[in-house]
Amino acid sequence: MNQYTVTFMPDNIAVQVDKGTNVLEAAQKAGIPIKSTCGGAGTCGRCLIKVKEGQIHFKGGHLSAEAREEGYFLACQTIIEGDVIVEVPPISLLGKHQVLLQDKGRLQDGLADLPASYSLDPHCEIATLHLKEPTLEENNSDLNRLLMTLRKEKGVEGRASLKFLQDLPEILRQAGWHVDVTLARADGRLLKVSPAGTGRCFGLAVDLGTTTIVVSLLDLLNGRRIGRNGNYNRQAIYGDDVISRVIHATGQPGGLEELRQAALTTISEITSSLLNKYGIAPAEVTVAAVAGNTIMSHLLLGVNPKYIRLQPYIPAANEWPDLTAGEIGLPINPLAPVYVFPSVASYVGGDIVAGVLFTRLAMEENLTLFIDIGTNGEMVLGNKDWLISCACSAGPAFEGSGITCGMRAMEGAIEGVNIDPQTFEVELDIIGGCRPAGLCGSGLIDCLAKLRRAGLIDRTGNFQEAVTPRLRSTDEGYEFVLAWGAESSHGKDIVITSADIKNLIRSKGAVFAGIQSLLKTVSLELDAIDKIIIAGGFGNYLSIPNAVEIGLLPDLPAEKYVFAGNTSLKGAELVLLSRQAWLDALELARKMTYIELSVGNLFMEEFVSALFLPHTQLELFPSVTEQTIPERGEL
Amino acid sequence: MNQYTVTFMPDNIAVQVDKGTNVLEAAQKAGIPIKSTCGGAGTCGRCLIKVKEGQIHFKGGHLSAEAREEGYFLACQTIIEGDVIVEVPPISLLGKHQVLLQDKGRLQDGLADLPASYSLDPHCEIATLHLKEPTLEENNSDLNRLLMTLRKEKGVEGRASLKFLQDLPEILRQAGWHVDVTLARADGRLLKVSPAGTGRCFGLAVDLGTTTIVVSLLDLLNGRRIGRNGNYNRQAIYGDDVISRVIHATGQPGGLEELRQAALTTISEITSSLLNKYGIAPAEVTVAAVAGNTIMSHLLLGVNPKYIRLQPYIPAANEWPDLTAGEIGLPINPLAPVYVFPSVASYVGGDIVAGVLFTRLAMEENLTLFIDIGTNGEMVLGNKDWLISCACSAGPAFEGSGITCGMRAMEGAIEGVNIDPQTFEVELDIIGGCRPAGLCGSGLIDCLAKLRRAGLIDRTGNFQEAVTPRLRSTDEGYEFVLAWGAESSHGKDIVITSADIKNLIRSKGAVFAGIQSLLKTVSLELDAIDKIIIAGGFGNYLSIPNAVEIGLLPDLPAEKYVFAGNTSLKGAELVLLSRQAWLDALELARKMTYIELSVGNLFMEEFVSALFLPHTQLELFPSVTEQTIPERGEL
Repeated sequence: MNQYTVTFMPDNIAVQVDKGTNVLEAAQKAGIPIKSTCGGAGTCGRCLIKVKEGQIHFKGGHLSAEAREEGYFLACQTIIEGDVIVEVPPISLLGKHQVLLQDKGRLQDGLADLPASYSLDPHCEIATLHLKEPTLEENNSDLNRLLMTLRKEKGVEGRASLKFLQDLPEILRQAGWHVDVTLARADGRLLKVSPAGTGRCFGLAVDLGTTTIVVSLLDLLNGRRIGRNGNYNRQAIYGDDVISRVIHATGQPGGLEELRQAALTTISEITSSLLNKYGIAPAEVTVAAVAGNTIMSHLLLGVNPKYIRLQPYIPAANEWPDLTAGEIGLPINPLAPVYVFPSVASYVGGDIVAGVLFTRLAMEENLTLFIDIGTNGEMVLGNKDWLISCACSAGPAFEGSGITCGMRAMEGAIEGVNIDPQTFEVELDIIGGCRPAGLCGSGLIDCLAKLRRAGLIDRTGNFQEAVTPRLRSTDEGYEFVLAWGAESSHGKDIVITSADIKNLIRSKGAVFAGIQSLLKTVSLELDAIDKIIIAGGFGNYLSIPNAVEIGLLPDLPAEKYVFAGNTSLKGAELVLLSRQAWLDALELARKMTYIELSVGNLFMEEFVSALFLPHTQLELFPSVTEQTIPERGEL
Repeated sequence: MNQYTVTFMPDNIAVQVDKGTNVLEAAQKAGIPIKSTCGGAGTCGRCLIKVKEGQIHFKGGHLSAEAREEGYFLACQTIIEGDVIVEVPPISLLGKHQVLLQDKGRLQDGLADLPASYSLDPHCEIATLHLKEPTLEENNSDLNRLLMTLRKEKGVEGRASLKFLQDLPEILRQAGWHVDVTLARADGRLLKVSPAGTGRCFGLAVDLGTTTIVVSLLDLLNGRRIGRNGNYNRQAIYGDDVISRVIHATGQPGGLEELRQAALTTISEITSSLLNKYGIAPAEVTVAAVAGNTIMSHLLLGVNPKYIRLQPYIPAANEWPDLTAGEIGLPINPLAPVYVFPSVASYVGGDIVAGVLFTRLAMEENLTLFIDIGTNGEMVLGNKDWLISCACSAGPAFEGSGITCGMRAMEGAIEGVNIDPQTFEVELDIIGGCRPAGLCGSGLIDCLAKLRRAGLIDRTGNFQEAVTPRLRSTDEGYEFVLAWGAESSHGKDIVITSADIKNLIRSKGAVFAGIQSLLKTVSLELDAIDKIIIAGGFGNYLSIPNAVEIGLLPDLPAEKYVFAGNTSLKGAELVLLSRQAWLDALELARKMTYIELSVGNLFMEEFVSALFLPHTQLELFPSVTEQTIPERGEL
């Protein structure tokens, strides 16, 4: 088969590929993170590239006339037929190193790192042992000598494994028979031996997100957090959302392995840089906890996720078998036990269980609603007596995906919008204070609220007539210009279109309908909720009044809302520090009832009612309806 | 670094090697099994090759003037300095496919395959399960569904692993939810799923010998043996005996891994050919048992064996952690539990434990002596109340190694010798009935007995004057010609030298001294022994009267001797078929007392006394001394 060279500019990275490979695949091989929401189906129009030199065949796909005129192709639909030079514009690249590691200071973090209900009781400990040197008369094996001393000096029944044993003879002698042994406290598993006085043990908490992966390194001997680090999940080159990834994993041979490796590579890079920074050897990290949604967990573990996507949506497992870092491929001590959070169901995963664990929902008398809004809106309602959960397909709009000028919450993203109700002039808050590049989730919510407040859209989201050059008609309906090309970072107008608004309304409607469905399942009303916990990175930028104004979140007093930040990571950290917390996590997942919203009509009725701003039933949003909003005729 | 091509003739196999590589290393790379008793030290003189073309540098080593004249070099001392063509003579090649699979019919096999004291109770079983198809309302995970059904229908608490889970979703659906699950009975471990009615389960028994590896395949559902297969251990290219191998494993980076891979490759080849022959998939083999000596077990498992060789001779472990085929690398179901027999000490290994288990030593009132003679003579003495064991370094003489014309018991080996006491003419029994190539262990013993009986050697093993052209003087002392070059397969005289005889006397003396040491440790005499079990392939060709005549074995009535064949393999087979047998094996190894012969003077005194034919104390060999042996003056 013919091989061609593809050179990617501006990075000047070249790879060899077979004839017939497309540019997206070549970029994946080159490690260049080109955006692809649809996973290479040619439908999302994100993977724009230019071909500077060489022969290609473009199969066609979702590419605007404008983009085509400017010389763009879709990478996934561009077949390489000779040596080519490809230019990847910044707009097509997934951002790097923009992952939010700390919750923003301006937001309230209502929770401590180790909740008061848990005490420091980590999964590993170090036993210092003084072994007697063997003689011809007392010639017990090295392993037996170690186990007997452990039993005698510490009362612990140790459990060895082959990997532990392989280098034991040399280590014992080099250490002069005085050693520190790192043990798993649950089952006496022997994890590491080092000369007495040198033993340390660390734990790795992993928030395995669809978009970003964040890890945290803890010193298990004192419970101190050493550092955090994060990056975008490299799986994104195979599709933005979990469904695209399941399709990639199950649609082609080797697809699942590619995704598994992409997640592992991301974790490895992040972890290595943390370990290097703090001078810690991988072998010293002797336990890990991973919290991710059900699909992400399947992908990391190389478990077939196919039937999660197909009715009746069945995961291979919710609760995982005992796992070690070695069998998963995590870049730490291969013997380290790894606690992967159990899921409740296909669309309420371990990240939610970690969040519920950390936020102590199931320990309180009060009724709490826990919400994590991403592509799916996952929510849990309950208290110490009962817990119910559901997931609604919110779509990726709040993550900036599927929106004309949507983007992630990174530098250049519009996170706040003000529209003068008289002049319709616009003021923008931009992350990083630079020129705007697009709108992130919080910016979109704010924009929607402000368009409504300015009377530019009506309760159904349709644009209203207005005398401003910012509102203009296109082939695809009306759009409103938030920033002119002259002001933006890329020289193009930043707009929000009718279709974007419909999209956002469907997203917010799905979340609110999910909340209502949970409440109705247990015959409760909105005002029964004592506390609403907003989890996830999205919450960090979210304005509650705006979210209430568009009908995304219930119209409850501001003091009932708590931002909990990255509860997935915090739950994973908690589990490293407390063995009881892990048992509680298992119990939580088993105990939580999952409401499948596609069964029956409840959700669909709620959803349809929620497709208004803020809602068909205005009485549900008393604080919003008090505002005087000009009503005008529909355009 | 320069790369050169080495071509091996007559097989015409070429490999690329770096400059500075020696021919033995190149042959190892090419998979050509050149003999090397010393493991490449240049001292054994076995790895003879000719260089037909190209530049080499010969460093020198143990090479006779004659061999040098004929153009031979030692492969291990021949450094490659250009593209070369090397000829490997048949005499330098390890034989292939000559491994004894069945005990010879002419010998008594006193033991049944499944001893009466055990009933069929294998480690695995198959459970046929009918799972209910999931629905939106009953959306348990695949794994949970399987576990719940197993619990309900069979009362078994199943234990899954990641590997089991990875493909489970697809298999369950392809099977239409009716499946056969293969389970480990000890702990409910799930090993395999297949459509209902297709489940089978097999076990692999491995006799992991230093020289040969033999495997046996059993159907665990009915206890039937399906087939056996064996071959020389590929580790032999790194040295004939365990000590050379420990030196190779610990003396250079990657040495241990090379030995591990060599053993695995041998097992894999043997196993694959068996599985292919009987149409069995590797995944259907769901349990294995391995019996080998302590060093061989360390090497297979990749465990550092360094300190077994150095005083005070400490193994990394005697009892192994729980093992699976996947972590060892055995070519069967990776989840299969693998039972590697525990050792008693560095030089009484799992092969002996397997033998003692199979021969029921520890279940009988009678006092039994179990002997396995190889490079080491390992022996166990005891009954149902106590067991003591020891190992004496017999040297490789009985395996044909270290003897001028020694060879393994394969086609062309002299296994029997008759010497006319008048004419000193010789009659030979040759394996395969072809022209002789050398002497194997039983031939050497017979030869020694017959030389003594013919009066050609005295009680110390020194040659006696005799009028025969067969007895001739060389620079290195006397030698006796057993076959003239015209009669032999290779055209050279086959001789036994003074040095060979001293060597054999040391070997037999060590074994007998070991037996005496065990007896004296428990204050018993030879006649207290009720039964002597001769284990191992060596026993198959051994003549008891000859062995007694030279003082190798005690002078006890023939009916007390039992040949048990390959008890290492039989013990491994037994453990596959009986869970109780495995527990008994563990108990046996713990219970057996090991007598370290290098402690104290007991062994050394016995050894010195045994360096005569048959012994200094003639009263220990009444049947031998009755024979009239002509005594003549020493040469």
